Amino acid sequence: MSERNSKLEELCITTIRMLAVDAVQQANSGHPGLPLGAAPMAYVLWDKFLKHNPGNPLWADRDRFILSAGHGSALLYSMLHLTGYDLSLDEVKNFRQWGSKTPGHPERDDEVGIQATTGPLGQGFGMGVGMALAERFLASRFNRPGLPVVDHYTYAIVSDGDLMEGVSSEAASLAGHLKLGKLIYLYDDNHISIEGDTAIAFTEDVGTRFMAYGWHVQRVDDGNDTAAIEEAIKAAQQETGKPSLIMIRTHIGYGSPKQDKASAHGEPLGEDALKATKERFQWPQDPRFYIPDEVRSYMGNAMERGKEAEESWRKLHAQYGESFAEDAAELDVVLNGKLPADWDAKIPTFKPEDGPMATRAASGKVLNAIAEQIPTMLGGSADLAPSNKTIISGSEDQSADNPGGRNIRFGVREHAMGTVVNGMALHSGVIPYGGTFLVFADYMRPALRLSALMNTKSIWIFTHDSIGVGEDGPTHQPIEHVASLRAVPNFLVLRPADANETAAAWRIAIEHDGPKALMLTRQKLPILDVETYQSVEGPAKGAYVLADSDGKPDVLILATGSEVHLALQTRQKLLDDHQVKARVISMPCWELFAQQSQEYRDQVILPDVTRRIAIEAGAPMGWHEWIGRCGRMIGMDRFGASAPGSEVFRQFGFTVENVVAQALELLDR
Amino acid sequence: MSERNSKLEELCITTIRMLAVDAVQQANSGHPGLPLGAAPMAYVLWDKFLKHNPGNPLWADRDRFILSAGHGSALLYSMLHLTGYDLSLDEVKNFRQWGSKTPGHPERDDEVGIQATTGPLGQGFGMGVGMALAERFLASRFNRPGLPVVDHYTYAIVSDGDLMEGVSSEAASLAGHLKLGKLIYLYDDNHISIEGDTAIAFTEDVGTRFMAYGWHVQRVDDGNDTAAIEEAIKAAQQETGKPSLIMIRTHIGYGSPKQDKASAHGEPLGEDALKATKERFQWPQDPRFYIPDEVRSYMGNAMERGKEAEESWRKLHAQYGESFAEDAAELDVVLNGKLPADWDAKIPTFKPEDGPMATRAASGKVLNAIAEQIPTMLGGSADLAPSNKTIISGSEDQSADNPGGRNIRFGVREHAMGTVVNGMALHSGVIPYGGTFLVFADYMRPALRLSALMNTKSIWIFTHDSIGVGEDGPTHQPIEHVASLRAVPNFLVLRPADANETAAAWRIAIEHDGPKALMLTRQKLPILDVETYQSVEGPAKGAYVLADSDGKPDVLILATGSEVHLALQTRQKLLDDHQVKARVISMPCWELFAQQSQEYRDQVILPDVTRRIAIEAGAPMGWHEWIGRCGRMIGMDRFGASAPGSEVFRQFGFTVENVVAQALELLDR
Repeated sequence: MSERNSKLEELCITTIRMLAVDAVQQANSGHPGLPLGAAPMAYVLWDKFLKHNPGNPLWADRDRFILSAGHGSALLYSMLHLTGYDLSLDEVKNFRQWGSKTPGHPERDDEVGIQATTGPLGQGFGMGVGMALAERFLASRFNRPGLPVVDHYTYAIVSDGDLMEGVSSEAASLAGHLKLGKLIYLYDDNHISIEGDTAIAFTEDVGTRFMAYGWHVQRVDDGNDTAAIEEAIKAAQQETGKPSLIMIRTHIGYGSPKQDKASAHGEPLGEDALKATKERFQWPQDPRFYIPDEVRSYMGNAMERGKEAEESWRKLHAQYGESFAEDAAELDVVLNGKLPADWDAKIPTFKPEDGPMATRAASGKVLNAIAEQIPTMLGGSADLAPSNKTIISGSEDQSADNPGGRNIRFGVREHAMGTVVNGMALHSGVIPYGGTFLVFADYMRPALRLSALMNTKSIWIFTHDSIGVGEDGPTHQPIEHVASLRAVPNFLVLRPADANETAAAWRIAIEHDGPKALMLTRQKLPILDVETYQSVEGPAKGAYVLADSDGKPDVLILATGSEVHLALQTRQKLLDDHQVKARVISMPCWELFAQQSQEYRDQVILPDVTRRIAIEAGAPMGWHEWIGRCGRMIGMDRFGASAPGSEVFRQFGFTVENVVAQALELLDR
Repeated sequence: MSERNSKLEELCITTIRMLAVDAVQQANSGHPGLPLGAAPMAYVLWDKFLKHNPGNPLWADRDRFILSAGHGSALLYSMLHLTGYDLSLDEVKNFRQWGSKTPGHPERDDEVGIQATTGPLGQGFGMGVGMALAERFLASRFNRPGLPVVDHYTYAIVSDGDLMEGVSSEAASLAGHLKLGKLIYLYDDNHISIEGDTAIAFTEDVGTRFMAYGWHVQRVDDGNDTAAIEEAIKAAQQETGKPSLIMIRTHIGYGSPKQDKASAHGEPLGEDALKATKERFQWPQDPRFYIPDEVRSYMGNAMERGKEAEESWRKLHAQYGESFAEDAAELDVVLNGKLPADWDAKIPTFKPEDGPMATRAASGKVLNAIAEQIPTMLGGSADLAPSNKTIISGSEDQSADNPGGRNIRFGVREHAMGTVVNGMALHSGVIPYGGTFLVFADYMRPALRLSALMNTKSIWIFTHDSIGVGEDGPTHQPIEHVASLRAVPNFLVLRPADANETAAAWRIAIEHDGPKALMLTRQKLPILDVETYQSVEGPAKGAYVLADSDGKPDVLILATGSEVHLALQTRQKLLDDHQVKARVISMPCWELFAQQSQEYRDQVILPDVTRRIAIEAGAPMGWHEWIGRCGRMIGMDRFGASAPGSEVFRQFGFTVENVVAQALELLDR
């Protein structure tokens, strides 16, 4: 590199560093340590390699970049601002303030070019795996010789903390197994975490560990050696058969008086240290947020380069369209996040005479009916596919040899599955799903939360949804899970009562943005006759009258999932034996019901019928919002027990006799 | 080994195998594959190494054994029955039935000798680390030259699934770092998981990975080679500086027609295959549950051996008591799970004039006051100790060089921390705690659930408990967490309102059995004057009247934690400006309140005052149980935002003005 280029490079890197520490200082809150240490790797990656167009952050074939170490957000905002994304210097100055586009940790923002929400460690690591997987899948489906319309890398900057989190271990093992050669992670190896030197807790041999996972591992001894970083990224690109980890030895808080100290991690430098740091970098103390003209100009070139890159891709895409019109049309549909017109054409209507069917079984049928029409739907289970009914029949397993395979074998790695599904959804172009037993949703909760926070179209299939699990016992019987997921904002919990409600739930899953979880039974349930019940249209409103009384009901019985059938039986028994009129309300989705008009809600849950019973084989939490303080709740306020499922239901009072008795007591009869 | 011994050994192993498959067949439910494959390793371990006394399952210095692959429960029940634990053959026959002691997955059972509840994969792996850590800590504290009163191994049988789970990676990395030399895991390496050959998802080099964690790794090529297993366990014992993984190549469903097939994993063999299996092992088809006399007699020797082992330990203990009376007295206290008489002598009472204090800061002070009096209290944080205030001042970091160190540096490994704390609590002799930000409780949820299911005295310290987190933004601001943990059965959630309620919460944490989580603020809060308020005694009842009205209140204001102060300000404002009489109820622990008499509960939440407001900066879920359907809830039904904490509170309506306005609206004024 010429001396002039080298000086310019240094100036750019210093600008990135100083912008970041100025932002943190101005907010009097944030993490200066990572940006100071990792600025060179970010600069090299973005300057020499990253294919992106700041003028169109959503260009489909851009490289993906994730700052998995999300606490270093100021670094990302500096990069976005300097390369010309729609993130003004005022936004950078407004770091961590109300209403700004520069929150404390990066939040997915399509306009600004933030690809993923990060901060909870390990999540970005896993989402990158999902993005790389989606890329390879789409490339396999759409690319033709000489026409690589899908062809990009996925990069991330990851930290010590990321690599300590178990989710990264799971995701790394999976990525190595899948041989995701276009996944390249730069490890900001700074030897410091919040409690101090990583030696106090983290002395494993990270490189060897990743080689054991099947990764290509390189080391760069000096985090400021941009040439070495460049060489390493090149080598990583050339290693097409393995994901790459480039371990770059950096110094947290580089160049500041707090360099190599934990105190550089998560608090502003402070005025004195900031001054000293600027002196060290021969940087003007004023103004803050100083950007030399030559940096502004050079780094701003990313816009022109990006425009050209996208244009040449558009030419390629046009050429592709000429040769493969049908594929191009399909590609446009998926890249725009649309659905094929006839996506739901094969969804069956189930009939009572088909005999009882577990909702997980119905889900498997519906999933296959949809997958047949949406060829970019793919997913799998965390080693429970036969139980979760998540297999797309007739499709191959996803693998390096079968990159178009739609059945992903996640292994016993629920958490990685969660992050990978989120990453695939973020990538766009695919509709991803992941399944496990509901009780093990706990293992992937941070990813579930993130799907809600990012509003990704992640579909979660959770079977074995209650004590109906039976013999496997309390370790495998969800109790608090339905309630605890309902508590997550922006997250649809769907607990269908039969096969037809399951089909309706799948429609919601495919049509609605944002994440949703289907809670499905292990055990068989009767099928509600669609001629008698509204079990096909009703669920879209979240709750509906399933079976009404003749005239004003004496009592309302609210239920979800398998317990809806108990409610129906109870209603009949109350009528036949006690001349009590009961209305049964099926409530497959509280969140959708809450979105309905007050009028509709009052039509369903009649305000003047205050005798109400709710039945759900789970924690009672939340039901009193619907049944009032004096309503009766038949739920589970303890853990379950190991025994055949029907016996467990009986023992815990999920019987017609008990519900009838409770209703009569409530009615003072 | 003589031929006779060899034949007897084979007979024993076959008995274990056949008992297990008979139990599964009888239940028509369960997992025959693991017991058939892993019976030899279990036999060798229990016969040649395991120090235990079936007559006293709680003998303090027993070796710990965990079947981390809990689905193989039938193997464990066979072992327990045959070695003379209080688990009758009828119980084995009653496998997976209502009321039996032989549930689908092992559940901690002090009477029967089940050391830990397992089944959710990876949990047993992590709990073993905690047990080994507790052992080393207690040994360091109590042992004297020639008097090793604490001296046992911790063993586990772990599976592919265990090793795929991220929690095991975290725990393995930590165990390697801590050099837990007396931790020995036998890996049932059978190459099969539920979806099929592990090669479809799990192709990493497990041995190299564990070496990278700092483990001693051995391989046994034939899972039926008992001599090789024995040698390997010996070698593992001799390697005192590293935890050991013995990778034993087994065959799932060994000897059955389903050998090496996924179908052997989780369903009964079926009558035909069972018949064929018994033929293969030259075993009588009838009776089921057949135990040859010589097996009964030989394996039953474990009782005599165990009795002798415990007796010789008791002699050692007596000798110890003669030389070190004071230590012996302390040892007895801790081994019996008791508290020193003056354990709470140093807990401070906080005064308003001390100035505002974050409850996390108060927690740190109280924790230290208790730790000073309870020298076997130890714990730490998942790399957030400075924020969580979990450091015991004056104590060393836990390490191989400092095995008596009480500050455990868990690293960024929340889930492993959860399992390790549970394992320490199960070990007994210590009072363990673990801390992180509340939002990251999600990362350790399976361990939290298991602490509730096992009723371990695990203390969880969750700071940064609301949007008060501020600038770090929605990724770090808990919303659904308080509610979703309240939904877990048998789990105390404590959200104290100030420093004195925090001290009260710690009293509850130390005195009550079972797990509990303290939800603590990042931000400072005023201190409630104990002369005015009952903030020291009140919390023990879960909820109490903090500030009452003169005469019957017009409105009840219920709140927890930081929002209690907003409730108090609102009460004053309502009185001063609107002559509205409000009662403020602090509800630090719903679970304890629910346990109070109806009379007490009605004294606090007056049934005839139906105008009620609840304030909690979290998901509203569950509050309607207290405020009724028409009560007003001021909570968070969306994710938070990045900005200074006070600004976030203001923007989301946690202001006196808003609460007053809502109250007036509720009162039609």
